[in-house]
Amino acid sequence: METSEATAGATRGGRGARERILRAAVELFTSDGIHATGVAKLADVAHVSTRTLYQHFPSKEALIGAYLQRIESDGAILGETVLDRRDLGARERLLRLFAERPTSPPSAKVVRGCPMHNAAVESAGTLPEASAAVERHKREFAARLVETAAEAGAPRPEVLGRQLAVLFEGARALATSLNDMGPLQDAEGLAKTLIEGATGPA
Amino acid sequence: METSEATAGATRGGRGARERILRAAVELFTSDGIHATGVAKLADVAHVSTRTLYQHFPSKEALIGAYLQRIESDGAILGETVLDRRDLGARERLLRLFAERPTSPPSAKVVRGCPMHNAAVESAGTLPEASAAVERHKREFAARLVETAAEAGAPRPEVLGRQLAVLFEGARALATSLNDMGPLQDAEGLAKTLIEGATGPA
Repeated sequence: METSEATAGATRGGRGARERILRAAVELFTSDGIHATGVAKLADVAHVSTRTLYQHFPSKEALIGAYLQRIESDGAILGETVLDRRDLGARERLLRLFAERPTSPPSAKVVRGCPMHNAAVESAGTLPEASAAVERHKREFAARLVETAAEAGAPRPEVLGRQLAVLFEGARALATSLNDMGPLQDAEGLAKTLIEGATGPA
Repeated sequence: METSEATAGATRGGRGARERILRAAVELFTSDGIHATGVAKLADVAHVSTRTLYQHFPSKEALIGAYLQRIESDGAILGETVLDRRDLGARERLLRLFAERPTSPPSAKVVRGCPMHNAAVESAGTLPEASAAVERHKREFAARLVETAAEAGAPRPEVLGRQLAVLFEGARALATSLNDMGPLQDAEGLAKTLIEGATGPA
């Protein structure tokens, strides 16, 4: 169906509809999961019709893609933005990264860990674009840890960076499995030992 | 509907039906995920009718519960059975645990990590029995790591055991996110450093 520019805004649920749909996706996908969240529920929470939703995102896959982009650009959800802070030295950025305690989405019933990892688990290879987005993000994150380890003067930055990537993922994944934030503390302790061992104490 | 003992076998798809359903669940849930696998597909792969499936497992939740029990009793899938080997010393058991390379299920399109963790991710608190089973398993596993660390003579077995639990989970979780077994190698290297640092070299 073709609409004029003037009516398009109305049929698409107003200028804020796309943003509301994306926010609903962030809320529901992070807290309840991707498969468990139907398009009807997303439309309901976003206060749009499913028809409007499909006008903005032609498929659920398209919305999942936009959701992962939003999570990545809104670094707060992933708890990785401390690596961008140019006011901190490299060693301090690595230490602070592990001192972060990611907050679960308000509507989550349980500890939800990393939403990008969770998307890879749910995809299981059947959502190739989502799997590729997660893989790229995690590779870039590990590469940044290696760079930061090098900047901090670690003698083997490749090894330290990759080990820290495993620790960071493990803290969030085990917090999910246990529904308990304890593993974040355990990972922080080990990360501190490794970072200080490689770059000297504060 | 009531059936006599004699006809029950036939209506339930023969004596092997329950086992075939459970094996189908192990194959499909581990490779494709829990939500993505419908009861019709499970029945198809198990060569039973959906009616027969529901005679053995009154709900998908019941089947998920039996699936998690099976995974736990068949330690091979989790790659944790080396902790049971009484022919190996405690230090060697810890080292071997991280030398294991879990094999993905034959039908998996991608690296699938730990099926118990994956079930916790998919549950997101909406499958309380599954979440509880994963939580209990992971707590027991961490407790065994602490005990084994103590037996190996680690001066702070609580700390080492919990750190190894984070590393073990992180290796599998990051392998899933990256669709790459590399993190298993990284975790093995760090685990070796930690275990030998706490208990002395071989």
